[in-house]
Amino acid sequence: MNAADSAGLLLSGIEVAGTLAFALSGFIEATRKRMDIVGVAAVTFFAAFGGGTLRDLLLDHRPFFWVRHSGYVWIVLAMVVVGSVWLRAVHLSPSARPMLWADALGLGLFSASGSGMAWEIGQPAIVCALMGVVTGVFGGVMRDVLCNEVPATFRDHRPYAICAFAGAWAFLAVASTIGAGWQALVAGVLVTAGLRIAALSRGWRVPGWAGERDDEPQGD
Amino acid sequence: MNAADSAGLLLSGIEVAGTLAFALSGFIEATRKRMDIVGVAAVTFFAAFGGGTLRDLLLDHRPFFWVRHSGYVWIVLAMVVVGSVWLRAVHLSPSARPMLWADALGLGLFSASGSGMAWEIGQPAIVCALMGVVTGVFGGVMRDVLCNEVPATFRDHRPYAICAFAGAWAFLAVASTIGAGWQALVAGVLVTAGLRIAALSRGWRVPGWAGERDDEPQGD
Amino acid sequence: MNAADSAGLLLSGIEVAGTLAFALSGFIEATRKRMDIVGVAAVTFFAAFGGGTLRDLLLDHRPFFWVRHSGYVWIVLAMVVVGSVWLRAVHLSPSARPMLWADALGLGLFSASGSGMAWEIGQPAIVCALMGVVTGVFGGVMRDVLCNEVPATFRDHRPYAICAFAGAWAFLAVASTIGAGWQALVAGVLVTAGLRIAALSRGWRVPGWAGERDDEPQGD
Repeated sequence: MNAADSAGLLLSGIEVAGTLAFALSGFIEATRKRMDIVGVAAVTFFAAFGGGTLRDLLLDHRPFFWVRHSGYVWIVLAMVVVGSVWLRAVHLSPSARPMLWADALGLGLFSASGSGMAWEIGQPAIVCALMGVVTGVFGGVMRDVLCNEVPATFRDHRPYAICAFAGAWAFLAVASTIGAGWQALVAGVLVTAGLRIAALSRGWRVPGWAGERDDEPQGD
Repeated sequence: MNAADSAGLLLSGIEVAGTLAFALSGFIEATRKRMDIVGVAAVTFFAAFGGGTLRDLLLDHRPFFWVRHSGYVWIVLAMVVVGSVWLRAVHLSPSARPMLWADALGLGLFSASGSGMAWEIGQPAIVCALMGVVTGVFGGVMRDVLCNEVPATFRDHRPYAICAFAGAWAFLAVASTIGAGWQALVAGVLVTAGLRIAALSRGWRVPGWAGERDDEPQGD
Repeated sequence: MNAADSAGLLLSGIEVAGTLAFALSGFIEATRKRMDIVGVAAVTFFAAFGGGTLRDLLLDHRPFFWVRHSGYVWIVLAMVVVGSVWLRAVHLSPSARPMLWADALGLGLFSASGSGMAWEIGQPAIVCALMGVVTGVFGGVMRDVLCNEVPATFRDHRPYAICAFAGAWAFLAVASTIGAGWQALVAGVLVTAGLRIAALSRGWRVPGWAGERDDEPQGD
């Protein structure tokens, strides 16, 4: 197996892990809001597929990821049903370490691949980078809007979208020199996930407006 | 008049009744939120046309229902103006029996026809069923998001989206055996509306997460 | 320089001023919600480009305004960064007079040009008018939904969408007689902005539902 095959396999694994981590974040937030199983399923779907679907709508790209790979829809449905029956006693937390890693890697992959789709159709670099961020982040934004919350990533002062933005530029830098292949994807994943994990473990904070200080309570 | 003509006429009648019921649900919620007439009109439009429009965006289908039949836009506008002037003294309720029936039949028709549109362009069955649910349900979801509420259908524990899901599968079962004609639409409408009316009259409940019990207050 | 050139230059100036006013309204609301800089940037983008992007999605029009003119993305990004550093001491208000004028003119231009895009592809007049309103108004609606508020324009009883609606019809009236050129755009801008400024300076109010009176507190 050569390097490209290994990278392809690795990226597929990250795609699965990332999608599940995104889905699980929706599952957890919806159950916290005491939604019924329909609401839990809907929010889980949006968290898992919302970012990629918005990117595809914006880029006029069909079929959607979850239409092309409809097995993912069944997996998420199964997760909701099994989760509702079986996880009653389990206290899931989105801050558990394996979930943070899966989420960070997924964020990196989706941001890089989202940038890549815009890159392939010749969009300006800043647009490619934004499409990457949308792909990685807007599933979570839709999740929070449906749960009637200000999106967490807009106000929790923890780097998330910024890591995706940096990773998207890393992807674009490699893509513009040696092409938009697996090397560029890996670069994007490494930069995004590395920054995200470093930010969490070192407590880096995104600045807020108007002299807000770190020691200040964040409200809400 | 043969069976197909009668069915066509019946389905057209259901389309009008269902659209008006959806619109009225938006009108009622927006007025409850004490919106001005602009907000009432906007929420009414989203409730009436939002689900079908989202389906058409996802399926890349143009022109939209309300562009093809722009008479509906005038009807909804007239409803908002007349309603704002004349219904001051009337206490409308979305739980009035005629409205529940119109809503249930409309839900059935829009779910079946939404599934049918995805079916015609060869999407996987699970995707067709989800498109049906989106068509029937997301007008109400957008209505609630614009009113700054957690969508009612995600948390009221009353079967709604689930009925649409079942009806979509009924449509797909008939469509895959004898074709996606009026028989499949009628099957979808009957299953969705029958389940919905039965669920309401017998008090069936959608399970929630984490051992939530029927006798427990649902909070807000 | 002939009349068409002058009008073109004027309309370009209005486009820049209107986009900045829309962006600034997002910046202000996001900072009020104490979002971090990521949230401020996202809400600012949606306020600036959301209405036009929704219109383009609905009309299946590509590339988007902000993809075609990606310089605007850099300007908005720069505004967020500079604003976050430098405006700490400045008390911006969306009710400042220059901002109200820029917003009113931008509303007029975006409504007229949105109607024009629907007009060019032969949509019914009522659909063209609605597309104009969507273009002018839905950036603000998305801004408020992301900030977890009922959209201000739906409930503040101050004419905004109605002015855009009237201006869109003015555009369509001129477009259907002498063509959809700069004269129609100028007519739309004048009607929308004129009505908006008149409404604000004279305190005109949009009626609400169920006998709500002007002297009644509007609650939240």
